[in-house]
Amino acid sequence: GRDLFSATHEEIEIGATTDIYFIRTKEILEKMNLEGTEIVAEIFAGGAGIVAGIDEALNLLKKKDVKVWALEEGSQVERKDVVMRIEGAYSDFGIFETAILGILASSSGWATAARECKQACGEIPMLCFGARHVHPAIAPVMERAALVGGADGASCILGAKLFGKKPSGTVPHALILTVGDTLEVAKAYDEFMPDDAARIILVDTFQDEAVEAVRLADALKENLDGIRLDTASERGGVTPGLVKEVRARLDQAGHNHVNIFVSGGLTPERIIELKSLGVNGFGVGSYISGAKAIDMTMDIKEINGKPIAKRGRIPGKTDSPNLKRVL
Amino acid sequence: GRDLFSATHEEIEIGATTDIYFIRTKEILEKMNLEGTEIVAEIFAGGAGIVAGIDEALNLLKKKDVKVWALEEGSQVERKDVVMRIEGAYSDFGIFETAILGILASSSGWATAARECKQACGEIPMLCFGARHVHPAIAPVMERAALVGGADGASCILGAKLFGKKPSGTVPHALILTVGDTLEVAKAYDEFMPDDAARIILVDTFQDEAVEAVRLADALKENLDGIRLDTASERGGVTPGLVKEVRARLDQAGHNHVNIFVSGGLTPERIIELKSLGVNGFGVGSYISGAKAIDMTMDIKEINGKPIAKRGRIPGKTDSPNLKRVL
Amino acid sequence: GRDLFSATHEEIEIGATTDIYFIRTKEILEKMNLEGTEIVAEIFAGGAGIVAGIDEALNLLKKKDVKVWALEEGSQVERKDVVMRIEGAYSDFGIFETAILGILASSSGWATAARECKQACGEIPMLCFGARHVHPAIAPVMERAALVGGADGASCILGAKLFGKKPSGTVPHALILTVGDTLEVAKAYDEFMPDDAARIILVDTFQDEAVEAVRLADALKENLDGIRLDTASERGGVTPGLVKEVRARLDQAGHNHVNIFVSGGLTPERIIELKSLGVNGFGVGSYISGAKAIDMTMDIKEINGKPIAKRGRIPGKTDSPNLKRVL
Amino acid sequence: GRDLFSATHEEIEIGATTDIYFIRTKEILEKMNLEGTEIVAEIFAGGAGIVAGIDEALNLLKKKDVKVWALEEGSQVERKDVVMRIEGAYSDFGIFETAILGILASSSGWATAARECKQACGEIPMLCFGARHVHPAIAPVMERAALVGGADGASCILGAKLFGKKPSGTVPHALILTVGDTLEVAKAYDEFMPDDAARIILVDTFQDEAVEAVRLADALKENLDGIRLDTASERGGVTPGLVKEVRARLDQAGHNHVNIFVSGGLTPERIIELKSLGVNGFGVGSYISGAKAIDMTMDIKEINGKPIAKRGRIPGKTDSPNLKRVL
Amino acid sequence: GRDLFSATHEEIEIGATTDIYFIRTKEILEKMNLEGTEIVAEIFAGGAGIVAGIDEALNLLKKKDVKVWALEEGSQVERKDVVMRIEGAYSDFGIFETAILGILASSSGWATAARECKQACGEIPMLCFGARHVHPAIAPVMERAALVGGADGASCILGAKLFGKKPSGTVPHALILTVGDTLEVAKAYDEFMPDDAARIILVDTFQDEAVEAVRLADALKENLDGIRLDTASERGGVTPGLVKEVRARLDQAGHNHVNIFVSGGLTPERIIELKSLGVNGFGVGSYISGAKAIDMTMDIKEINGKPIAKRGRIPGKTDSPNLKRVL
Amino acid sequence: GRDLFSATHEEIEIGATTDIYFIRTKEILEKMNLEGTEIVAEIFAGGAGIVAGIDEALNLLKKKDVKVWALEEGSQVERKDVVMRIEGAYSDFGIFETAILGILASSSGWATAARECKQACGEIPMLCFGARHVHPAIAPVMERAALVGGADGASCILGAKLFGKKPSGTVPHALILTVGDTLEVAKAYDEFMPDDAARIILVDTFQDEAVEAVRLADALKENLDGIRLDTASERGGVTPGLVKEVRARLDQAGHNHVNIFVSGGLTPERIIELKSLGVNGFGVGSYISGAKAIDMTMDIKEINGKPIAKRGRIPGKTDSPNLKRVL
Ligand SMILES: [Zn+2]
Ligand SMILES: [Zn+2]
Ligand SMILES: [Zn+2]
Ligand SMILES: [Zn+2]
Ligand SMILES: [Zn+2]
Ligand SMILES: [Zn+2]
Ligand SMILES: [Zn+2]
Ligand SMILES: [Zn+2]
Ligand SMILES: [Zn+2]
Ligand SMILES: [Zn+2]
Ligand SMILES: [Zn+2]
Ligand SMILES: [Zn+2]
Repeated sequence: GRDLFSATHEEIEIGATTDIYFIRTKEILEKMNLEGTEIVAEIFAGGAGIVAGIDEALNLLKKKDVKVWALEEGSQVERKDVVMRIEGAYSDFGIFETAILGILASSSGWATAARECKQACGEIPMLCFGARHVHPAIAPVMERAALVGGADGASCILGAKLFGKKPSGTVPHALILTVGDTLEVAKAYDEFMPDDAARIILVDTFQDEAVEAVRLADALKENLDGIRLDTASERGGVTPGLVKEVRARLDQAGHNHVNIFVSGGLTPERIIELKSLGVNGFGVGSYISGAKAIDMTMDIKEINGKPIAKRGRIPGKTDSPNLKRVL
Repeated sequence: GRDLFSATHEEIEIGATTDIYFIRTKEILEKMNLEGTEIVAEIFAGGAGIVAGIDEALNLLKKKDVKVWALEEGSQVERKDVVMRIEGAYSDFGIFETAILGILASSSGWATAARECKQACGEIPMLCFGARHVHPAIAPVMERAALVGGADGASCILGAKLFGKKPSGTVPHALILTVGDTLEVAKAYDEFMPDDAARIILVDTFQDEAVEAVRLADALKENLDGIRLDTASERGGVTPGLVKEVRARLDQAGHNHVNIFVSGGLTPERIIELKSLGVNGFGVGSYISGAKAIDMTMDIKEINGKPIAKRGRIPGKTDSPNLKRVL
Repeated sequence: GRDLFSATHEEIEIGATTDIYFIRTKEILEKMNLEGTEIVAEIFAGGAGIVAGIDEALNLLKKKDVKVWALEEGSQVERKDVVMRIEGAYSDFGIFETAILGILASSSGWATAARECKQACGEIPMLCFGARHVHPAIAPVMERAALVGGADGASCILGAKLFGKKPSGTVPHALILTVGDTLEVAKAYDEFMPDDAARIILVDTFQDEAVEAVRLADALKENLDGIRLDTASERGGVTPGLVKEVRARLDQAGHNHVNIFVSGGLTPERIIELKSLGVNGFGVGSYISGAKAIDMTMDIKEINGKPIAKRGRIPGKTDSPNLKRVL
Repeated sequence: GRDLFSATHEEIEIGATTDIYFIRTKEILEKMNLEGTEIVAEIFAGGAGIVAGIDEALNLLKKKDVKVWALEEGSQVERKDVVMRIEGAYSDFGIFETAILGILASSSGWATAARECKQACGEIPMLCFGARHVHPAIAPVMERAALVGGADGASCILGAKLFGKKPSGTVPHALILTVGDTLEVAKAYDEFMPDDAARIILVDTFQDEAVEAVRLADALKENLDGIRLDTASERGGVTPGLVKEVRARLDQAGHNHVNIFVSGGLTPERIIELKSLGVNGFGVGSYISGAKAIDMTMDIKEINGKPIAKRGRIPGKTDSPNLKRVL
Repeated sequence: GRDLFSATHEEIEIGATTDIYFIRTKEILEKMNLEGTEIVAEIFAGGAGIVAGIDEALNLLKKKDVKVWALEEGSQVERKDVVMRIEGAYSDFGIFETAILGILASSSGWATAARECKQACGEIPMLCFGARHVHPAIAPVMERAALVGGADGASCILGAKLFGKKPSGTVPHALILTVGDTLEVAKAYDEFMPDDAARIILVDTFQDEAVEAVRLADALKENLDGIRLDTASERGGVTPGLVKEVRARLDQAGHNHVNIFVSGGLTPERIIELKSLGVNGFGVGSYISGAKAIDMTMDIKEINGKPIAKRGRIPGKTDSPNLKRVL
Repeated sequence: GRDLFSATHEEIEIGATTDIYFIRTKEILEKMNLEGTEIVAEIFAGGAGIVAGIDEALNLLKKKDVKVWALEEGSQVERKDVVMRIEGAYSDFGIFETAILGILASSSGWATAARECKQACGEIPMLCFGARHVHPAIAPVMERAALVGGADGASCILGAKLFGKKPSGTVPHALILTVGDTLEVAKAYDEFMPDDAARIILVDTFQDEAVEAVRLADALKENLDGIRLDTASERGGVTPGLVKEVRARLDQAGHNHVNIFVSGGLTPERIIELKSLGVNGFGVGSYISGAKAIDMTMDIKEINGKPIAKRGRIPGKTDSPNLKRVL
């Protein structure tokens, strides 16, 4: 048997992840000699947001004999806006309907959530730390979509690479617990890590965060780039008061140069509140990774040049000036 | 370049989808000669539900030199219950922390939502139709998790196969629009499809649903197994009144044998309401596919035999009688 | 015995519908030789709205020896505004207190609701279809009040006539069901009805509304003035999506000339939503017929020229510049 | 011109208050030679409550060549229960559809509200004082419906008579203001009114209610049957504290025999609260007169012996064991 | 034993009302030879409002060897603003921490509530009538704080005197009940009270308020300065309608010169509503006396010249430009 | 001038804290020769709760020539229950009306809040720490009332003494900050404090609470009775997770004997939640000190043996079987 249940690229490309009824559709069309019927189909968004996944969807379609018009990756859409239009024989692209809708829906959901967080952050960097909440097969898809939406970096190695970035991250609680002392970890990190890796150390593992932050800064001096606050919710999480106090105690000890990074349960609202207290960077996890997909629907709008639609939809092509011919 | 952004099995297994900081952790532990430190880590659930993904996670761990205790796939958990305990060197399993947490979190979310729908359905079959809302790389993971949670079938070909089932489904609106008449499609389906494929036809494409249902039943007679209602939300969706009326009109025309299947925006509440009006099966999409992940957290609880924990957590192994030694 | 329980005009005019205590009051005043006491009474509105019923109330008073000042039919009032002032002997008008208050209260409630709907409609015609929710004895009173409030027409024959209008309406579901086909009814209507009766046909009886609308338009061509949507709530009612789609399908079939009329559970909010989608007329029923009466109260304010009032009210005439001497 | 806008009995019986489209329906059926089509129609209730108006509706139908089954006047119904079934030619009864639905809808609304008040009152008498809020043409219909629903009496002369009762009532504020002293009115009332009219006097016109009540009781002694509290809302209305105090002060002055009646803005909730403090009777106005009509709908269910229905409704007769053949 | 449980001035000044742990602190500091440690402490407000109690707190501190900076009595503060800064040996002022915080917290709560009422009153006088809701030992403290907040007068003899005012008040219900007639009391008051005591008489004891008010005004003429409305909640309290009516009836009787005062359950909202109807003065009780204290916290911010703070607070003096050196 | 604005015992006893109108009442009664009028007055509670302050009120009355009936200190009352009845000349006790009502109202509010907290605590001790939120003159009154309501101890020295208790408390943050180390303070406390003072040390000043707690316990061993958690709200306050973790870490270090005390913003709800996690004692502040007073009202009910009352109240003595003759 296989070890992982996620589909391989080959399985996706041969249609193994499609809904069974598209296979049956193809068979029946062939039996009825209708497999060459010329069709115009449109994909529209079920909600407003940032569209992502266009590029990946086009990669699936490019080997098929179809014409495609689409929005640009990262476009802003309103509810019911058309995202992509496909012309060709349904037999040619029908087996990808499930896959394309799924790619667009989930990627657009992630990109939209990332955009909201980035807008809350403004100039301050926002990294995507959500890989741990999704299946590893799509962690890079999710992180790439977050980067499309505006994230400044991502922790997942493959996700960052797909967007032409280096992955971002520091050290986990696990390392600090294993070593047994935060300062020792900080020193080792400083010694062993490449020069271009920022020295940002978690300070909530063993000790009061403010005490630990000042202790590290006193020891590492200018070598310490920043500290990260990730206080457990059992301890009240990262409160505005904690941020303000850590900033003040670092400053009073002469360490204005030490930046403060915050992670843990962040939302746009919390980002806005904490940003004003002197935070220098945010790591957002489940707000992005758990974003609701933006449902995508594919409608047939013309058959052999005639407008048509199922009940509930308007027959014929939708006026969509932003669509560009891409295939 | 690659066409798809999802990770391949190989990429997952070499750790390419992990958070970068686990790689750094490994390096630093090695530099400090701590790579062999004996560690006990526990993964606990951040919310109540049905756990899924255990089998896939164990497949990742089985090649490593670790001992593992875990709950059974499909177990019910409460918030903070331990799902898995791993003993070994952190260097051995740390790079899978991101992947394992992601597998468990997302699969458990899907299984839990499927369980809620199945409980609403009771004896009536419930199929998972959610593939179109997720990336195709994880469509089979999602559908398998839904089957773990209690779904009776799934539409995604690979998803069903992974659980040892045949995929379920009928025909899409696209086929009916292409052919141009629902009855023609129904006849072709009856003629060309294998005998064991149920004859269930969508009736909301061109015509009033009740008119179309009776027309099909009059033509196909005992060969028609059921009709599917999937009325667009623009037309009010599938209302209780519509179900009641279609059932009554079919019965009055002598077609008690024709079953009614419903899909489209279903939730446990709507299932309970519609079930009592004579529905014979439900196809659930985004309620399952869009389920919130059940966040999973890995905590280090012992190092070299001594209880330990980061601030906010209780040091030492958690009393968890349902864990079984699996590796 | 009588067949109908509503009061005849004669019964109302002799005071048979008054509260018994006004009769007793008259007797006692006579016994005490106070029947000629000069009184000033005012009627004030318990809420804001459009006053209607003034004309009918004055018809009751005109045969009595009283002086009357009143607002004009259709005036806008605020809470506590005086609507009418009567001077004379209480014995002369007391028996009409119940009747006059009832006429003003109910008519003003209806006129106010009609005004709200008309304001929502703007330029688009709004007809009152509420007769079926009220007793036939007052159906014409209600429809007349709706016309005072701004309705453009009314379905009740007598109601329209009282306001100098022709009644409005098309054909009921009953006729279409009896004939058995909408198109046959449409042709008969076109053939047998007078030229000045608009050809507006209900299209939700047997078939999908959009299918039926196009079928009628294709058959009757320029003779079809409009279609009416009155979809049952069991089928989701008349949704915005349905209106938009029917408009689009008619236009695509070349029938821009066919108007769309909507009826069924309309409120000002729904009218505003549907108006923007191309509806050409609305028929409003229970929102008008079921409007809350605007309670009216008659207070004695002067006796023999001296200000007086019961506890809770201000003695003396209220400053009311809009009152005009009418009797 | 006419003085009153309400329809006379003759106008109702010739169909002048019907919706115009029933007239057109009759004409078209005749032109199509379908006027004799055999029809089964059912009227169902749009909400739960007490049905009233059956008797009046049957009086309209009894001269027609139709068979009728109906519930008994005053029956309890649930939403969608059938209230009446009519068999015959639609041409025979169609012109009464508007009238019959209106009679049943409004009467049932009033009867239902009266029932709620009576249930709140329990053994204590409840009178209907709502005539002043409705048009005088239907004041007797409303009061009769209230009596069907359970009211113990009504103030409108004709309304009470239709139910075989004497009207109930005392004296208005107007009489007391005209005479200028409550005690003088009370003495005159005692002197001039028939022996069987209860001596119940309003006590809130000029004076503190408790002071006035004791003053009247001291003067009239055993001749005073009761006092009525109707305090204006500007003065806080009739509060529980007022009722309790008036009862106590009357008792302390030795007048346990004097009953307390309350009117003014009563609802079932307020009745329950005040009843427990020693009130001996209630007069309810706008809660009954302003009750929402229970919408009634007439559906065609069979034509020439075959089940039929418009979209949204179930074809064929509804199983309704409580219907009795009445015509 | 003592009769009263409130602390005497001497008890407060020797620290008998402090929390026991301040005594222990002093002992331990002495044992550790730390009693002379130089400390800077700040008191900050836990909420926004008007600060009162500064003067009283300073009286406690003035005999100690400390330097003090403080806001002015009656200043407006925001949450977290510093109200007072103390420099000296903790042994010198620690025993007053409890007392000072209590004085400031409760006085500031009262002053803030009084300010809200005064702002609602605008130009119209507002008196504090809250003494009956608090212990007599602090009634003068509360009333003084209300005067600081903006009250124009106070009923408590000692409270008014502490602020250099004469106490305000009229006569209680008790006097009127004892004498047995409001007019007799009014005449006696007019005869026996000093010329500069305003003749303001309660009118709700025995009679309808409007009747009684006009009766008093007719009898006392220009000698009657005003009437007071304090209607019991059992009778609906002082409603807007009552105020309006009493004003109108007094004016119609030629007594425009008679002012109306209102007391009983007043809040800023009710004051605003009643003010517009012609009220000339308000007496506010529990809204002021029952105001929530504004919690005050004393933090140590420097020790021997070095910034310090407990976890959760910012070390070092807070930038507070409005503090003035006062001791 | 005086330093403190609170009234002395003498001022209270001569009536200096009464409302001015009671003084005027006395003068007028004397002028009218009514000072000896025999009066029965009752004090009733405006809300449900625990009555306190009876003893102090009786101390004020005992030198007067009056008969008094009262409930016992600490009784449970419902709204409108009579708390005290006084018979005598109004001139004798009228000047104490303000004082007595204030004593009863405020003390009963505090006792009621203390009772709610104690009921939440069950067997676990609950101390009153509210002195810092009230004026020092009434801190002992408040703490005594809390003890009446069920508190097990109080921090205010005089408050505890009035109830025959020793005051309770530990050390403040101020001492720990001054000394500069929590452990040093703990050792000094252990050395210098009397043997019967429990060794309970605050652990949130400088360090992580769990770290500090274990450090103290390791050092003081069996001499440490408990630790107190009072974490600032800026740091999330005392969360359930913190309590659970501190308990676990102490137990794992072998210190089951060390109790956990919690203070800071406690309410009955939070007490119930934290109690179940192993807390051994609670210190409640503002929930008790800031309790709403239970308004008390004194009504005259008889004059010279005749029932009487102001409008809104019932004349005559109220049936009150729990009143006992006390003076
Ligand atoms: Zn962590
Ligand atoms: Zn530094
Ligand atoms: Zn579809
Ligand atoms: Zn069949
Ligand atoms: Zn219809
Ligand atoms: Zn046309
Ligand atoms: Zn009246
Ligand atoms: Zn009597
Ligand atoms: Zn009073
Ligand atoms: Zn005057
Ligand atoms: Zn503290
Ligand atoms: Zn120990």
